[in-house]
Amino acid sequence: MVSELEMIEALRSVAVGIGDDAAVLPGGLVFASDMLVEGVHFDRERFDAFAIGRRAAGANLSDMAAMGAVPVCMVAAFGVPKGFEDVAALAAGIADYGVDLVGGDLTRADQLVISIAALGRAERPVLRSGGRPGDLLVVTGSLGGQAASGYTAEVTPRIAEGRVLGQVATAMIDLSDGIASDAGRLAEASGCGAIVELALLPRAAGATVEQAATGGEDFELLAAIGPEVSLPDWATVVGRLIPGDGLRLVDPDGVTVDLRGWDHFA
Amino acid sequence: MVSELEMIEALRSVAVGIGDDAAVLPGGLVFASDMLVEGVHFDRERFDAFAIGRRAAGANLSDMAAMGAVPVCMVAAFGVPKGFEDVAALAAGIADYGVDLVGGDLTRADQLVISIAALGRAERPVLRSGGRPGDLLVVTGSLGGQAASGYTAEVTPRIAEGRVLGQVATAMIDLSDGIASDAGRLAEASGCGAIVELALLPRAAGATVEQAATGGEDFELLAAIGPEVSLPDWATVVGRLIPGDGLRLVDPDGVTVDLRGWDHFA
Repeated sequence: MVSELEMIEALRSVAVGIGDDAAVLPGGLVFASDMLVEGVHFDRERFDAFAIGRRAAGANLSDMAAMGAVPVCMVAAFGVPKGFEDVAALAAGIADYGVDLVGGDLTRADQLVISIAALGRAERPVLRSGGRPGDLLVVTGSLGGQAASGYTAEVTPRIAEGRVLGQVATAMIDLSDGIASDAGRLAEASGCGAIVELALLPRAAGATVEQAATGGEDFELLAAIGPEVSLPDWATVVGRLIPGDGLRLVDPDGVTVDLRGWDHFA
Repeated sequence: MVSELEMIEALRSVAVGIGDDAAVLPGGLVFASDMLVEGVHFDRERFDAFAIGRRAAGANLSDMAAMGAVPVCMVAAFGVPKGFEDVAALAAGIADYGVDLVGGDLTRADQLVISIAALGRAERPVLRSGGRPGDLLVVTGSLGGQAASGYTAEVTPRIAEGRVLGQVATAMIDLSDGIASDAGRLAEASGCGAIVELALLPRAAGATVEQAATGGEDFELLAAIGPEVSLPDWATVVGRLIPGDGLRLVDPDGVTVDLRGWDHFA
């Protein structure tokens, strides 16, 4: 059995530029693709078509934000099971962020499948791989809100913030799987290690420290920024890149925390 | 029960620019999206992963060709069922036309789902809607080959031909469903009627006239071109746009043929 990681590695061997939130094309164009599948990413009993469309586009636009890009437009392809009639509501949800949906393809499928490709522009596209030891790790907004609220499918892509951070960041990623995973990805792509101080994580209302560290779907941005740069007041420093490799989550005494035991620590 | 046509109409009401093979963006960029679903578009028992990937990209690149565009790059998203391990071969099939696959997304799904978005450039993007009464209808290559051979999943997108025809065509579409359907779409988008002379259809080896008219998956181009334009010798005139609406398929005596009875006519 081939693992998902092995499949991604196989894909990387064929495709140019896989490994960032979006591909960077000549002329500052960035190009990203995302697929949402019923039963994997969402549940039709829990969310209506508008919310599902909004969630799908939100994740994709968050990828744009993570590149420091401003989205230009999107195309969507829908796999639609028998009996599903809400394509217009799906499309309305996708278009709800004000980014034009300029094309669509519709086909039959057993599960509802939504695939969105977004095109954006960035004066200075930011990859995951440019971080250097000594860079501060900063996040937008607050973390763990989706985990604390039982996942609402609500996404606010940080386009404006991404554009600001994109002027100064050495590396950037959006937090789709939680900083305990995504900070490691940024550090690995940058050839560094990373330390995240759990006490510094800006927690969403009701979120535990563990939820702030490991909860998914927050779609906030994590940027690496040189220590000499003055930060906007909405950005929170949560750690730094260090020489070496691996991500360490530490308590206020600098002791590495094993998140499997996190409930006791909190 | 809402029909697929009603869903497409609903989508059209939200999305800007749906109705062509690709969306046209400022600066001559064109942007298209396609989704292929196992059991709907292909059968994994019959085709290997490389062939499926090649078929998926071929259909998308054919959309580029139909706009008179040269493809720049593609992104792909894959929904992968348990036990499917050939993502690298899928991606290799997609990249087989020499157009860079610059990004990918991978997720679980019950059926194998492949969604490709392509970005291209056209000096003069050709829509379906620019045809005028009096324009000749011309096709590339030969028709009915896929129907005659039992559908091989083999696609040769007519990029070079699309670029040449794109310099002079008033409207263009690729023949994915057969000229008996697609010529009607071009005519309707152009606000015209159309006549296609069945005896003029360039038939692929072994193809009946009915297969040439109604067989899908040929992915040849159908262009409307003013009668004063000199045509390349690989283009075949098969009919013309006329005032009014509707598509008529006619025999050499100009008598309208009902394709339900076509076997007897042949």
